[in-house]
Amino acid sequence: MAKEKPGIPKGTRDFPPEVMKKRNYILNTISAVFRKYGFSQIETPSIENLSVLTGKYGDEGDQLLFKVLNSGDYLQGISAEDFELGYKHLLPKISNKGLRYDLTVPLARFVVMNRNDISFPFKRYQIQPVWRADKPQRGRYREFLQCDADIVGTSSLLCEVEMVGMMSEVMNNLGVDDYRIRVNHRQILFSLSQLYGPNDKEDAFAVIIDKLDKIGWEKVSKDLEKAGFAKEGIKNLEDLFADGLSFNDLETRLSALLDKNGLEAISEVSKVFSMLENSNSKYDSTKIQFDPSLARGLSYYTGMIFEVEIKNAKVGSVCGGGRYDNLTGIFGLPDVPATGFSFGIDRLYDALDELNKFPSSVTQGVKVLIVHFDQNAFDYGMEVLGNLRNSDTLNQNEVIAEMYPDPAKMNKQLNYANKNSFSHVIIVGDTEIQSRKVTLKDMRSGEQELLDLEQVINNLIKE
Amino acid sequence: MAKEKPGIPKGTRDFPPEVMKKRNYILNTISAVFRKYGFSQIETPSIENLSVLTGKYGDEGDQLLFKVLNSGDYLQGISAEDFELGYKHLLPKISNKGLRYDLTVPLARFVVMNRNDISFPFKRYQIQPVWRADKPQRGRYREFLQCDADIVGTSSLLCEVEMVGMMSEVMNNLGVDDYRIRVNHRQILFSLSQLYGPNDKEDAFAVIIDKLDKIGWEKVSKDLEKAGFAKEGIKNLEDLFADGLSFNDLETRLSALLDKNGLEAISEVSKVFSMLENSNSKYDSTKIQFDPSLARGLSYYTGMIFEVEIKNAKVGSVCGGGRYDNLTGIFGLPDVPATGFSFGIDRLYDALDELNKFPSSVTQGVKVLIVHFDQNAFDYGMEVLGNLRNSDTLNQNEVIAEMYPDPAKMNKQLNYANKNSFSHVIIVGDTEIQSRKVTLKDMRSGEQELLDLEQVINNLIKE
Repeated sequence: MAKEKPGIPKGTRDFPPEVMKKRNYILNTISAVFRKYGFSQIETPSIENLSVLTGKYGDEGDQLLFKVLNSGDYLQGISAEDFELGYKHLLPKISNKGLRYDLTVPLARFVVMNRNDISFPFKRYQIQPVWRADKPQRGRYREFLQCDADIVGTSSLLCEVEMVGMMSEVMNNLGVDDYRIRVNHRQILFSLSQLYGPNDKEDAFAVIIDKLDKIGWEKVSKDLEKAGFAKEGIKNLEDLFADGLSFNDLETRLSALLDKNGLEAISEVSKVFSMLENSNSKYDSTKIQFDPSLARGLSYYTGMIFEVEIKNAKVGSVCGGGRYDNLTGIFGLPDVPATGFSFGIDRLYDALDELNKFPSSVTQGVKVLIVHFDQNAFDYGMEVLGNLRNSDTLNQNEVIAEMYPDPAKMNKQLNYANKNSFSHVIIVGDTEIQSRKVTLKDMRSGEQELLDLEQVINNLIKE
Repeated sequence: MAKEKPGIPKGTRDFPPEVMKKRNYILNTISAVFRKYGFSQIETPSIENLSVLTGKYGDEGDQLLFKVLNSGDYLQGISAEDFELGYKHLLPKISNKGLRYDLTVPLARFVVMNRNDISFPFKRYQIQPVWRADKPQRGRYREFLQCDADIVGTSSLLCEVEMVGMMSEVMNNLGVDDYRIRVNHRQILFSLSQLYGPNDKEDAFAVIIDKLDKIGWEKVSKDLEKAGFAKEGIKNLEDLFADGLSFNDLETRLSALLDKNGLEAISEVSKVFSMLENSNSKYDSTKIQFDPSLARGLSYYTGMIFEVEIKNAKVGSVCGGGRYDNLTGIFGLPDVPATGFSFGIDRLYDALDELNKFPSSVTQGVKVLIVHFDQNAFDYGMEVLGNLRNSDTLNQNEVIAEMYPDPAKMNKQLNYANKNSFSHVIIVGDTEIQSRKVTLKDMRSGEQELLDLEQVINNLIKE
């Protein structure tokens, strides 16, 4: 057998226990909010047919799909000529499956396949890994978790209102208060592009504007010029994109500029804001900001778009989404309106870590290790362990009880307790056996006391 | 864009909401028990280097690995000669990564890579999908979830005791009472094989015995004969494998037959039984049965082995595991003792479904939909929705409140509530707006009543 030093592929990660606890805390918080708002979880296969995936993410996306080699003799029926024609020609002959690239195309496929069983509007959430053969770099992975919620089958602005409500509630529940939710509408961007730029540059306009946060206005204005936007128009955009303008102010300015679609878009934004006021949801209006420079990279959005930022964390946006009204068109089912949004788990993790927002109960918790002087003590310890694990009080408080499994010097056992962050140890030896009690030691204070089991349980749940 | 009818690859599955709820119930029950016993969750990448995976699962396993094609021009540097040499020769040149085949080899890799950071014994659990290019058939999938718990770095029989405790506790918590845990020891099988069969047939013996449940004794005895076992020996085995023999009885018989290793194994089993008695754990001794015919397919077990069956369900074993003392040897780290076990989620799901053991709270729950007669009612409904979602009492009871998003005929809205199993609807119209109350309708009884919000909340949590 091979004795090579094992490693993991570039751009992938192992998640050790400390990290998993924090990730699970984030995921549990988010999915509780999803469920509260009536979303149901689904899962789809990691492997999809390439016929489903190809052509849905643009040429670059097709390149970044991980392809799975056909099983068995994948060269069967393939000629030397096929080989000579190169890897692009050969690909569909040796691979018909690929790894999921996002959760949106699988949702579209799921909806189309199950259209007769689903009673619309369909509210689903999905938390699963996706894979992209991207160049790995800081914060960009080849395998990463996506966390999406979508409503399929309604144009109601209630969807937009609920999205904002859910974003706010997740941030609140994660203990983050310095966030802001930026809001815009794709039709406003389209309208501005048509006003100041050449025809058919709407998508390019959104892509350029999307870079504003990263590259700054100076470079953006140069890119706009290159794309054929007039200097005067660019100046007007700069004014519109200035920080600190209220929605009322922008509404007035934009109303004087935009075409019919743009005006309708402004009125949708206005309606969502007033529905939010009326909704009694736990959102904080000072944290929500209309921002006509918000673009979102993806071209499939058609209506309002959203992005959540945490001001004091250097991680970029931690959540984004919007309305996209042609989800299932790619699979031949047109005119199905949808909204959706997605949390960036890796970025949220980094932000909470940076801001020290993980509750100590997530990583620490109350854990007690039984340590023993000899075989008699081990046997007595087994009894104690059973009693602790049978205690409903401890179970309700998620207190974890373990016993050091091997005969070992007391120092070694205590060392193990320290390294594995046990908050307490229970020491058993002759004294404890004879008194039918145990010695409970608090590993942080070092204090210890001979107690009966009921007292031990009381002490542990007081933590 | 393609308009083909989309599908999913053979042997993969979509999990719709109803199924996810039941699967999550099983997974949450199991992982709560894992955590209670001090196991910590880890996750490893879905994609592993083929150098890590290949050669670890036998020749057949290597065939069943899903290989991921290298990104970009995977034919670069590959000659026509390479192509002519066939798919096996070409494989390592065009693919260096594969999909995870199980959770055990990734655990070994993780332990070896992190050996300096881990404080042993290391107790980890892991719940992630694995992929096998097996021929799909009823109950056998190409992508399925594994659910493993392992203790690495101790030979203590406490591990075996805790495994039985955890198996019992999971079955109890899932409401299954007609289960039995079969127990055997690999060294007893080896010893019997050496006693009655040719040299070096130990592994073949285990593989043949393992089929007993499926093919019956007659066929097993024929296979043993073919493998060179003497007729008299086979007769002796038949007696030993007879149903209903107590451990004490078998202990006496085996003690007269076995060699030193076999005797040691018997004494280990005996010790584990008495530790279980002493452990006060919630296990039920009548459900645990020593069975010298239990073999387990995998060759890597070296000590005690376990299997859990649900008597009245036709799904085979739902859990299995044992001691395997050379986990990390495949990666150059010898002599690391380990024990582990694994739940079969798909089989558990089928068994609970068959026996009708899913609690109704898992699939139903209290869900209320606000339905509305007109735009004024919709606006009032928004307020009611916000108040329901802000109610701590409802949130603590996981009551889900939603509103029908579109203006629609009352019938259509009620129909939606029915199809999506809402237990209640709240009807709002002019009467409700004027009285600042709402009409709560129980969808199962059809009864409805005009109530203020506080009464509604009280009614909903009484469910």
